[in-house]
Amino acid sequence: MKLKTTALATALIVAGMAWGANLRDEPIQPIAAAKVTNPAMVELGKKLFFDPRLSRSGFISCNSCHNLSMGGSDNLKTSVGDKWQQGPINSPTVLNSSLALAQFWDGRAADLREQAGGPIANPAEMAFTHDLAVGTLRTIPGYVAEFKSVFGSADISIEKVTQAIAAFEETLVTPNSPFDQWLKGDDKALTKQELAGYKLFRDSGCVACHNGPAAGGTSFQKMGLFEPYQTKNPAKGRAAVTGQDEDRMNFKVPTLRNVELTYPYFHDGEAATLEAAVDIMGRLQLGRKYSQAEIADIVAFLKTLTGDQPTFVMPLLPPSSSATPKPDPWAK
Amino acid sequence: MKLKTTALATALIVAGMAWGANLRDEPIQPIAAAKVTNPAMVELGKKLFFDPRLSRSGFISCNSCHNLSMGGSDNLKTSVGDKWQQGPINSPTVLNSSLALAQFWDGRAADLREQAGGPIANPAEMAFTHDLAVGTLRTIPGYVAEFKSVFGSADISIEKVTQAIAAFEETLVTPNSPFDQWLKGDDKALTKQELAGYKLFRDSGCVACHNGPAAGGTSFQKMGLFEPYQTKNPAKGRAAVTGQDEDRMNFKVPTLRNVELTYPYFHDGEAATLEAAVDIMGRLQLGRKYSQAEIADIVAFLKTLTGDQPTFVMPLLPPSSSATPKPDPWAK
Repeated sequence: MKLKTTALATALIVAGMAWGANLRDEPIQPIAAAKVTNPAMVELGKKLFFDPRLSRSGFISCNSCHNLSMGGSDNLKTSVGDKWQQGPINSPTVLNSSLALAQFWDGRAADLREQAGGPIANPAEMAFTHDLAVGTLRTIPGYVAEFKSVFGSADISIEKVTQAIAAFEETLVTPNSPFDQWLKGDDKALTKQELAGYKLFRDSGCVACHNGPAAGGTSFQKMGLFEPYQTKNPAKGRAAVTGQDEDRMNFKVPTLRNVELTYPYFHDGEAATLEAAVDIMGRLQLGRKYSQAEIADIVAFLKTLTGDQPTFVMPLLPPSSSATPKPDPWAK
Repeated sequence: MKLKTTALATALIVAGMAWGANLRDEPIQPIAAAKVTNPAMVELGKKLFFDPRLSRSGFISCNSCHNLSMGGSDNLKTSVGDKWQQGPINSPTVLNSSLALAQFWDGRAADLREQAGGPIANPAEMAFTHDLAVGTLRTIPGYVAEFKSVFGSADISIEKVTQAIAAFEETLVTPNSPFDQWLKGDDKALTKQELAGYKLFRDSGCVACHNGPAAGGTSFQKMGLFEPYQTKNPAKGRAAVTGQDEDRMNFKVPTLRNVELTYPYFHDGEAATLEAAVDIMGRLQLGRKYSQAEIADIVAFLKTLTGDQPTFVMPLLPPSSSATPKPDPWAK
């Protein structure tokens, strides 16, 4: 199996060692709580994350498809975009996304800041332009004041917008899952079945890809190693970035954190349940047909990866002014 | 001018007397803070309000069009419905909606419970059926447990769903606006311009319709008393309920609470700004052409009606189970 060990993955493993003497030596490490160094920027980013005025229609926000009431996802195969367009790929959860080596399924964005600008300007998603989005924000007095307060200058730019959104997203980590409690030494945090599921998950090779604090996000891997993955979804994977045909169907390994909440699964969203996803992963990635009992054990383990969800007060958005362009969802 | 004095309006005026000796004798009364008698039901209702699984597509929730980050409205002329359908009428704010004599612009629902069932089953809005929505909720173990805890029985019905949503909506009041502080005796709560604007609003007759704690919502009135209101919107108003042609273009008087946040205005959403709305209201409802300075004063007053917005922790929704129907936004 092709495994790209990244500098990030190494750094994460080193970071994991900081948990202390009781930390079990496992390929998955606990999630650390968010350290907020700039709360005002996080608060601004939260507003922007929830603000549909960053879309052409005035109806779609980041939270529409990365819904923080629903595990940071939309629980749809692919997302609803501007004018009800059918999105090309399953929306990955925003939870713990700061732990990934790159953003999007094909890794075309290096980090959360670069990612945040993507959907705003994607004609199939929020369908705006960076200039129009920034132009809209500049007409909203509450935002002008808040950017000034956070950045020291009232000028609003797409770089500041995405920096603030990324700062908010970096807080969206989910520590304290039962599995993390077990990792930190609490023997009672997992049931026998959950522990058996984890050992099977680990020892049958799932951890080759699903490792690090996010149990994923540390490498790109080919979907369909032992058998080709059958899908009608035309996404090329990493090949769209590298231009290399050998990277076709290489995707960023998704995080398994909170996977109980982020159904349906895979880049095409075609696996409706965790049971189906485990069965397919076993056959296609490991050449192994798990029994129903084995699948049940692994699923029981996977549900122990649900951590504390981010809880925060719903933001109040500053109102538009008479100078703010009036969105028309049905404009041609 | 035709004014229907309702029992509700009378009750509200009597209730206003409870504020104490300092309360000014004005046709608008302060908003009272919400009294939560059943916090568990409110919490369940909040989840349901935010849950897009009450829609056919799995994408639209109550909050999509009554966005609590945006004054309980969507700030669009008319709302985006299932499959991006163009809604027939401007979404009224959910804030303080419990104070209205009836629900919807035409008052076709007697109360919030009756209202809450409407959009779920409206083919142009959430496009589901009550049976399908309830059937979906019954497959979600977290909801089953929560309904049991709140209602004493695990059986989920549309009546319980709408009761819980209404209980949440009853908490969405906005007390403590600058105008309310003034009403309660604080002379410094309003600027000279704001006070002049209020006196003009009151003495030129706006309060004939915009009265009570919500500054509206106490009666149905004809849109276009002195001049017909020109609109392409086909909404019939109250006539759709009564079948009486004389009720054509009779609409529930909208609340002016938080009107700064609930643009655009009127049932067709055609007035983009408060200035335009005040100008049109003066001419069509009072036969009076306000000067630019007068409009500015009234707008300054209207902005003092923005109260404390409901602040609450964003709900976390219980995940679907393998038995939950899988929504497909693009299903025929």
